[in-house]
Amino acid sequence: MSKKHPQFTSHMEAALAEARAAAARGEVPVGAVLVAPDGRVVARAGNRTRELSDPTAHAEVLVIREACAQAGSERLPGHVLYVTLEPCPFCAAVISAARIARLVYGAADPKSGGVAQGPRIFAQPQAHHVPEVLDGIAAREAEELLKGFFAAKRGGGAAPS
Amino acid sequence: MSKKHPQFTSHMEAALAEARAAAARGEVPVGAVLVAPDGRVVARAGNRTRELSDPTAHAEVLVIREACAQAGSERLPGHVLYVTLEPCPFCAAVISAARIARLVYGAADPKSGGVAQGPRIFAQPQAHHVPEVLDGIAAREAEELLKGFFAAKRGGGAAPS
Repeated sequence: MSKKHPQFTSHMEAALAEARAAAARGEVPVGAVLVAPDGRVVARAGNRTRELSDPTAHAEVLVIREACAQAGSERLPGHVLYVTLEPCPFCAAVISAARIARLVYGAADPKSGGVAQGPRIFAQPQAHHVPEVLDGIAAREAEELLKGFFAAKRGGGAAPS
Repeated sequence: MSKKHPQFTSHMEAALAEARAAAARGEVPVGAVLVAPDGRVVARAGNRTRELSDPTAHAEVLVIREACAQAGSERLPGHVLYVTLEPCPFCAAVISAARIARLVYGAADPKSGGVAQGPRIFAQPQAHHVPEVLDGIAAREAEELLKGFFAAKRGGGAAPS
């Protein structure tokens, strides 16, 4: 865990724990934690696309939907989203729609990322809301989790838990 | 309804009916219908973001999630999605993730569209799957519904039903 941003480490550690739990369920190991303006953790989740047969059940979407349902609102102003991997274009667009104030993420995703690469959703003139973005937080840990998971899949072994 | 594509009219009419029902509920009037490879309509929905307090509850996402749950799969190969408005970047990314074979849509959406404008999700080198796209089907009807809805909102009147 990076020591450069100690204020982020506990939430990112919780997100990494969700990513590990996702791997143990055979899901792509990505985890997310959503923090309210008062500092309370309002939702935490790992990917569940396979379990739920739902291509939208990415960790980020699950925590945003849960927090919106709790709040009775489509929007979450002032909230901070921690996620272990760069959000895909789909998640980035939901983050913008939900008016998330700040996005803190771990590893870059050259294959499917939509924030710093690909369609760069927040840089589009269409983006109705652009969160503050902090990247590279606990990136090494997040990346190793993903690499281990896909190496085990290719090797036909069990997903690492 | 356009006479140029008679084979699409009944499904697009059903999508327009969903859009009208959404307007009557105070939701942005967009409707979608999902058709299986055997021609069966497997899901139909209008927007429900307000009702469900869910920023992801766009018509396209609702029909894809429902059909995936029915199929017990994250993917819907061979399926055709009819939607009254150009999908946003978020919906376009979900359409790609779900491996929808063909997307038929009505009105263009210069403000929030993600197919023919903005991030042009399907044109990104990252797009893992690109559906066949047919646009402009029943575009006038879809556009008039949206214009009427937003004019009524601005005027403080009731949403048109």
